Amino acid sequence: MKAARYYGPGDVRVEQIPEPVTKDGQVKVKIVWNGICGSDLHAYLAPVPKFPTTTEPNDLTGETLPITLGHEFSGTIVEIGNGVDEAQWKIGQNVVVEPLFSCHKDGSCIFCAAKSYNLCPSANFIGIGGWGGGLFEYVAVDTRYVHHLPAGISLEVGAMIEPLAVAYYAVKKSGFKEGQSALIVGAGPIGLFILKVLRSIDPLSTVLVSEPASLRRELALKHGATIAIDPLTPSESGSPSPATVPTAALKATNGIGVDVAFDAAGLQASVDAALMSLRPKGTFVNVAIWEFDPKVSMNLILIRELNVTGTLAYTGIHPELIAAIAAGKITGIEELITKKISIDDVVEKGILSLLNEKETQVKILVHP
Amino acid sequence: MKAARYYGPGDVRVEQIPEPVTKDGQVKVKIVWNGICGSDLHAYLAPVPKFPTTTEPNDLTGETLPITLGHEFSGTIVEIGNGVDEAQWKIGQNVVVEPLFSCHKDGSCIFCAAKSYNLCPSANFIGIGGWGGGLFEYVAVDTRYVHHLPAGISLEVGAMIEPLAVAYYAVKKSGFKEGQSALIVGAGPIGLFILKVLRSIDPLSTVLVSEPASLRRELALKHGATIAIDPLTPSESGSPSPATVPTAALKATNGIGVDVAFDAAGLQASVDAALMSLRPKGTFVNVAIWEFDPKVSMNLILIRELNVTGTLAYTGIHPELIAAIAAGKITGIEELITKKISIDDVVEKGILSLLNEKETQVKILVHP
Repeated sequence: MKAARYYGPGDVRVEQIPEPVTKDGQVKVKIVWNGICGSDLHAYLAPVPKFPTTTEPNDLTGETLPITLGHEFSGTIVEIGNGVDEAQWKIGQNVVVEPLFSCHKDGSCIFCAAKSYNLCPSANFIGIGGWGGGLFEYVAVDTRYVHHLPAGISLEVGAMIEPLAVAYYAVKKSGFKEGQSALIVGAGPIGLFILKVLRSIDPLSTVLVSEPASLRRELALKHGATIAIDPLTPSESGSPSPATVPTAALKATNGIGVDVAFDAAGLQASVDAALMSLRPKGTFVNVAIWEFDPKVSMNLILIRELNVTGTLAYTGIHPELIAAIAAGKITGIEELITKKISIDDVVEKGILSLLNEKETQVKILVHP
Repeated sequence: MKAARYYGPGDVRVEQIPEPVTKDGQVKVKIVWNGICGSDLHAYLAPVPKFPTTTEPNDLTGETLPITLGHEFSGTIVEIGNGVDEAQWKIGQNVVVEPLFSCHKDGSCIFCAAKSYNLCPSANFIGIGGWGGGLFEYVAVDTRYVHHLPAGISLEVGAMIEPLAVAYYAVKKSGFKEGQSALIVGAGPIGLFILKVLRSIDPLSTVLVSEPASLRRELALKHGATIAIDPLTPSESGSPSPATVPTAALKATNGIGVDVAFDAAGLQASVDAALMSLRPKGTFVNVAIWEFDPKVSMNLILIRELNVTGTLAYTGIHPELIAAIAAGKITGIEELITKKISIDDVVEKGILSLLNEKETQVKILVHP
């Protein structure tokens, strides 16, 4: 059985590994679809903190490299381990695995005890820290990480629930409500997922997207953006102006500014543009991982009483999100699938395609 | 009658000016005490944005320099203008003037309409933008800016309600509650006022103060700080460490971090220390005016899901604050008065004393 194994930057090998053994309290899932995530790409380019190394094992899984890649996956239960509640878990059920694991020492870890397990110091992901991954035929996983996929949700959409949960959690934390306006800086996959979630709350309100790549701007417009701005539009002086995005945001909101802004780019220009585009008392949510510490105008935060926050993955929202999709409140997720490939092509047609054709590729699903 | 008149940086003159005329809708207040504010000191050292210049008048008052200084003042009503509700306003009543004025175009200014008049683009202060000031015997002022001072509150405390309102509003916005821990970076007057307000909410919980000046650390301890940390304490390597304050904050909170942190210093080291000292999901409130844009760790905000905000002055909280003082919920305000002087001494024993003896002086009240 073939798995995509991560040996380190630039070294992902499709190779045979044995089928996992289902332990007590686990179910075995036959994986049908796995999406490739931006963090898989980061790890392909350079070392990324949450991965173990060849010598330093993950503190919870005890595994070192190589590990099986993939943390966005859905499939079907094929085996039930001892001690599993058989009234709840049955062979043949479609499920989605929530890959974020944590220490779950409820007595000693205040984060796990408070259901903020994403903030647990040991928080990591199946497919990053070990315990298998979605780019393989099977995974054996504790039932605490498994959610039922209702009949109306396809396994393709099931594989996209993980990145959608990142967007859903960020939007939830932003407080975005019907009738409010928003700006999304960066129309990569997470930016577009945020757009989908915003549109599930209000299909009509003003949502601006700032994105320098023209093909991504087209995607944003196709998926519901009111306006897609090129932040590099030259001003009258001929060079791009930091005022381009805020000017567009003010123009689109009667001079007031947007209620919420999401930074899905992680650049000095993106945080500047997002903060300047906000209305007084507006909220900025960072969903980007930064390679440096940007300069932030504390005076702007003060004189406009802005709220600046960030969200890390998600915590405790999969049931609510799955119910929202099943109820038809979030639609069109499958429109963000741009390619479906087989595991043999995961590097060439998957990882390298996302890196080299990032203006046109959003979500590539892999069938193992 | 003598007034302290601001002509520009380094040029405050005590000189005779005529008594103001009480216009329709105004009361005339005989001023008893006026506190000197940090912003008066800033203006003494260098030009400050909200002051008019000799050629550019304030947009609401129409006044140019010189203006009468002072925006923290209390006094007694001595005259009632035409059109004033005489059931509400009477000669002999003690009052405090809320100096923050704004455009009050409720139909067109969304900030004034929403009672966020501190965010009005025209927001300014009596004693900065014009319309008289507290460093004079009288002020004639629209009743909308006047609040009754109940019998139990002295005129000295009345003169300190303005800076206390800044602290009260910041604490309110921080969400600080009984049982929570806090860090205040900078034990200048605003830092100490914040400490007083925190202590009015919980007299016992852990409140750390970070302050390099030893005399100010003593003041902080005297006024209720649990621990006063010197952020410049040399580490084992002999030089001050950025970890000093966070280490102390973690030690004092069982390794969790403080619930809220206030930056009343406005330095790179202060924002770094405050953010690193916060617990996950903790709240940072900036009350400092910054001379530069600090670098901010967006990754820290993300991985700990911190909330970063700032507060500008206050809005709509004077009645609630005065009621809290009258009810004995906030006590010991008068302990922050370090000197009482006459208007003739306002520069030498007031402004220059605060600038040169800032480690021992907190609030200097001036009797005009």
